Amino acid sequence: MPDRARGRFITFEGGEGAGKSTQIRKLSASLEAAGIEVCLTREPGGSPGAEQIRELLVTGETGRWDAITELLLLYAARRDHVQRLIEPALARGCWVLCDRFADSTMAYQGYGHGLDLQKITDLHRIVLGELKPDLTLVLDLAPETGLARTRAGEEAARRGGEDRFERMELAFHERMREGFHAIASSEPDRVVLIDAGKPLEKVQDAVATAVRERLKVRL
Amino acid sequence: MPDRARGRFITFEGGEGAGKSTQIRKLSASLEAAGIEVCLTREPGGSPGAEQIRELLVTGETGRWDAITELLLLYAARRDHVQRLIEPALARGCWVLCDRFADSTMAYQGYGHGLDLQKITDLHRIVLGELKPDLTLVLDLAPETGLARTRAGEEAARRGGEDRFERMELAFHERMREGFHAIASSEPDRVVLIDAGKPLEKVQDAVATAVRERLKVRL
Repeated sequence: MPDRARGRFITFEGGEGAGKSTQIRKLSASLEAAGIEVCLTREPGGSPGAEQIRELLVTGETGRWDAITELLLLYAARRDHVQRLIEPALARGCWVLCDRFADSTMAYQGYGHGLDLQKITDLHRIVLGELKPDLTLVLDLAPETGLARTRAGEEAARRGGEDRFERMELAFHERMREGFHAIASSEPDRVVLIDAGKPLEKVQDAVATAVRERLKVRL
Repeated sequence: MPDRARGRFITFEGGEGAGKSTQIRKLSASLEAAGIEVCLTREPGGSPGAEQIRELLVTGETGRWDAITELLLLYAARRDHVQRLIEPALARGCWVLCDRFADSTMAYQGYGHGLDLQKITDLHRIVLGELKPDLTLVLDLAPETGLARTRAGEEAARRGGEDRFERMELAFHERMREGFHAIASSEPDRVVLIDAGKPLEKVQDAVATAVRERLKVRL
């Protein structure tokens, strides 16, 4: 086999309705047009074992797992995903574009649900050592805008009774967003905040610019 | 509800064929005869969620999970087991007798398979804090004796071809046994080594003596 350079690992983060899947598809097309082999994946899941663990996480009643059990299952799935899919793909020169990764756990379980941030950091180190994405793009959006986008087209009939739930949900998403901002501030070399409130083409341009500048590639 | 003293948490450890299930039944009967409410459980598993995680661990091909993924799944199951069954039982005054617990992970994944012992210790602290059994009884037996016991009654026809596998298996069980010895040496207040090579009644006496002396109970 020819000696190939290791691929790059790019993760997309952000709340509901921020447009991650669209932007991943667009970036994937640009990279392929530039002759780069791309591998698309997502979390939780991404490898056969991780998908089975995902089943445990997404099925059954709310509160089925306590916060620490959920954290361990997420990291078990992540370890499998990294070992069986991400690392082999990077090793053969593929660029891996992943929809959510470890920053989602920090933002969701840590900032959102109040799990001790140091515990999450310690667990990450035990499980993945120093592995980090080469570049993380946070599609940043006010939660009310994101939630409104995901609800567009949904029935608004039962709104009245859901006000309290929606306010809770909004506060939770505000904390998640603060989490992503805190992560971006503490790791500016790895993490780029992208304003996802702008029109699609502007967001796409910002993503392409970040990838071009940070990873030294012609797009 | 009447104010009740917290129950005691007793774990049984040891290799194959050491007679854990028999001794757990005997101790359980003695405790109940002394008017103590007993809860019997085992790992991996023990609670509905943990049993579902156990399914992922015990089914499928060997090597399905890498060592760290397996460790995370074991601790996810353990967390659920502790939160949903062990802690509530202890809180209502039950004595919990558990067939295998965290020392098995240290002996099996750590000493047996060579996973970094410090990683296992760090993970334990993240997941369970300072929780430890009040008493751990290690039924200690030479692996060749234990394996011979579990094989008694099995067909010996294919022995020839399995020699290499059996020698590997024996070396693995020797390392596990060394692990249990190391744990017992480092935590003499919690862990008692019991010679499981003696006749059943002698082992039963040694278990009862340890429980009587360590946990100040009349049996």
